[in-house]
Amino acid sequence: MKQFTSVHDVSDPAALVQEALALKRAPRGSLRHIGQNRTIALLFFNPSLRTRLSTQKAAIELGMSAMEYNAGQGWQLEFEDGAVMNLDKAEHIREAAAVISQYADIIGIRTFPGLQDREQDYSDYILKQFQQHARVPVISLESAIRHPLQSLADWVTIEEHRPAHRPKVVLSWAPHPRALPQAVANSFLEWMKRADVDLVLAHPPGYELAEAFTRGVSVTHNQNEAFEGADFVYAKNWSSYQDYGRITCQDAGWMVTPEKMALTNNGQFMHCLPVRRNVVVADAVLDSPNALVIEQANNRTYAAMAVLKGLLEGWTGTEP
Amino acid sequence: MKQFTSVHDVSDPAALVQEALALKRAPRGSLRHIGQNRTIALLFFNPSLRTRLSTQKAAIELGMSAMEYNAGQGWQLEFEDGAVMNLDKAEHIREAAAVISQYADIIGIRTFPGLQDREQDYSDYILKQFQQHARVPVISLESAIRHPLQSLADWVTIEEHRPAHRPKVVLSWAPHPRALPQAVANSFLEWMKRADVDLVLAHPPGYELAEAFTRGVSVTHNQNEAFEGADFVYAKNWSSYQDYGRITCQDAGWMVTPEKMALTNNGQFMHCLPVRRNVVVADAVLDSPNALVIEQANNRTYAAMAVLKGLLEGWTGTEP
Amino acid sequence: MKQFTSVHDVSDPAALVQEALALKRAPRGSLRHIGQNRTIALLFFNPSLRTRLSTQKAAIELGMSAMEYNAGQGWQLEFEDGAVMNLDKAEHIREAAAVISQYADIIGIRTFPGLQDREQDYSDYILKQFQQHARVPVISLESAIRHPLQSLADWVTIEEHRPAHRPKVVLSWAPHPRALPQAVANSFLEWMKRADVDLVLAHPPGYELAEAFTRGVSVTHNQNEAFEGADFVYAKNWSSYQDYGRITCQDAGWMVTPEKMALTNNGQFMHCLPVRRNVVVADAVLDSPNALVIEQANNRTYAAMAVLKGLLEGWTGTEP
Repeated sequence: MKQFTSVHDVSDPAALVQEALALKRAPRGSLRHIGQNRTIALLFFNPSLRTRLSTQKAAIELGMSAMEYNAGQGWQLEFEDGAVMNLDKAEHIREAAAVISQYADIIGIRTFPGLQDREQDYSDYILKQFQQHARVPVISLESAIRHPLQSLADWVTIEEHRPAHRPKVVLSWAPHPRALPQAVANSFLEWMKRADVDLVLAHPPGYELAEAFTRGVSVTHNQNEAFEGADFVYAKNWSSYQDYGRITCQDAGWMVTPEKMALTNNGQFMHCLPVRRNVVVADAVLDSPNALVIEQANNRTYAAMAVLKGLLEGWTGTEP
Repeated sequence: MKQFTSVHDVSDPAALVQEALALKRAPRGSLRHIGQNRTIALLFFNPSLRTRLSTQKAAIELGMSAMEYNAGQGWQLEFEDGAVMNLDKAEHIREAAAVISQYADIIGIRTFPGLQDREQDYSDYILKQFQQHARVPVISLESAIRHPLQSLADWVTIEEHRPAHRPKVVLSWAPHPRALPQAVANSFLEWMKRADVDLVLAHPPGYELAEAFTRGVSVTHNQNEAFEGADFVYAKNWSSYQDYGRITCQDAGWMVTPEKMALTNNGQFMHCLPVRRNVVVADAVLDSPNALVIEQANNRTYAAMAVLKGLLEGWTGTEP
Repeated sequence: MKQFTSVHDVSDPAALVQEALALKRAPRGSLRHIGQNRTIALLFFNPSLRTRLSTQKAAIELGMSAMEYNAGQGWQLEFEDGAVMNLDKAEHIREAAAVISQYADIIGIRTFPGLQDREQDYSDYILKQFQQHARVPVISLESAIRHPLQSLADWVTIEEHRPAHRPKVVLSWAPHPRALPQAVANSFLEWMKRADVDLVLAHPPGYELAEAFTRGVSVTHNQNEAFEGADFVYAKNWSSYQDYGRITCQDAGWMVTPEKMALTNNGQFMHCLPVRRNVVVADAVLDSPNALVIEQANNRTYAAMAVLKGLLEGWTGTEP
């Protein structure tokens, strides 16, 4: 693995899931040699709790040193080539990425979309430009349009609870008071299309995701129909892709309730967290034994470990 | 030890003081095996200098990895059960505490009171809810109403300077321009009641502390009387508990001066820091050989080490 | 070495440069014993990217633990002796420096000038007072008037590209939209005066630096003349020292261009970064093989390692 920004960077995603599961079973402290004398820089352009802590934890377990940098505070980067930098941007991505590459063996980047300009967001330019100008592997800690570490952890969790039959996995839109990115949903679809599952996407009209992610996925506007016989229900809110960044419907009827879960095949409930209780999902679902959300968060550590290990092994350190 | 949030979590506080003193004498680097492969998450809802650095230092000395998280920045937690989370709170304490428990072997939490609503503050709900929902030991890095790591370090410092006789220890209110919590004072009383000392509390009328903390302590409004024959004088400001969170008196006459220290039995001066010079205490006292404040701050490291060691040993890691 | 705040703290700067080069050649992970069980506290009163990461990296490579503290957030220090602290300052430098000295073996401090009051800035009082009251070595991570870690890295970079002859080194003022400190320029002069080079300082009238730094340096207002035959061109903006903190000239004609570099002896281009492209220097210069800026940033790590090693070796740990 040379970088980790989407499922397309991984030659065999199912094998990476198995690697994560193997790392989860390893005795504590037995893996410290893997990343010995290696360092990761974690750049946060946006807030992060789970990703911040689980990626640090993963680095520690592999014996790496992690250095955090909260880029939000007054670090204005210029991304335009040829720009005359006489305004607010003090540093160009060309220097920034090259310089940090010298202090770290891997660079992790967290960035969110502005949800104002779809074309700009979907160009994923902050992540892409770091990739282009960095001289070490780049790992996405969630970008404007994808959250691959989350999706890998989701798949690991599904694998741990996989039934004997080919499971039905439903990604369902759910209500939320604020406009959220499509990143988690986009990524989940992208990864699940590579898994041995029947994948269904359910959302109200107006919440269609970008075709690049939904191609080949069966889509329905009928949540109940989607839940029928489901083995896994993944709830997540996102704002509109068509009417970009808008909340076009607040339909509380899409909240996941025990009644809806009763339609499933004793289905497991999933969410990436943080989750709005009694808005996205009812307490009774989240507090039931079928809720996997805490284990999903736990698996973030093993997903990150598998990715870091892959990058360390697949990267010779020779600069271009 | 299963948690560390007050003296009540410690079966034998005097033994914990001795443990801290023993750890202080240990050669540097000789204790790294104790916390090997263990991780502590330090959550700061409020600023912290001494606690932040000394707890990190303690973790390092024990071979642990420490991960800091500054929760202040936009991490709005919901603490109400059954809440419909459609307003500003993005995450429920139930998920937050359970998730962080998976990334760390111990969770430290720093939080301050709002000083507006006494009942809410004295329920110590942030700390209490973390305790309830965490699956690993919780350590208070100062809460709304207590600062047990400080009190343990204070006791260690008193022990190091203990005279041959049973010492007289005075906790004296002192002036301050801003309204401060009662946490340090509350905790100091709670711990000193378990120590082999004569404890006296001195403050102007209107600064009575909560009865749960003062029960059994001799209280006076006469600072000079309190100082007479004292072996240790601990100065600290707090705002009113009765007229909650208010400054009901700014009496500059309560500042600790050389004249007042002259009443003591060559008494040692203590304060938790940071301290307002020439408001709480005169320069001449703070800069005298009898001031223990720097050593108190030093002992924060050994207090934290003793507690972390106790938690690591008393905790099997088996989740509920 | 007892501290590292300017070239005057170093008995043999050229030997320190050689030490940094030797550490750069050392196999990864081979130096961890040097700082084993030692800790550095990094206090940031101002933002920092390169210094923050490279100093952390240096500490890690030497086996030290680094603790960061972002002092900007509400940590108001009093520096005045005898002050009655009844206003906004909650802690006196006397306690702050003494306390942190107990948690760390070395204290690093980053602070910027206010650029309002020249006398105050040039007293470098924040750094100086930390030095005075700390009980462990203090290392400047850039102060109001100097940036010695940068200058040491600059010298290391020049050494790596040193021609057979005694090189001509030019420090040239360059335009910038904002008022910047003189620290990098001051320090560069101070260090280069100790190196075996021909040093020339070029700037427009009105940008004279303080005499303490320029004494003995040949100064010209003619940039082209300065560039003629130069082996190294170091570009940097600074605001006026005379008309303190002001931008007295924005002359775009001082931008470093390929045309100007053509006057040099195939000169290498240097800058401390971050750099404003097409304001300070043209893209064509920065993207040419003669630009050393990325390697300069890389050498920050080895400069910091040499200094930390020197401090660890030259410091017995015995408190005053």
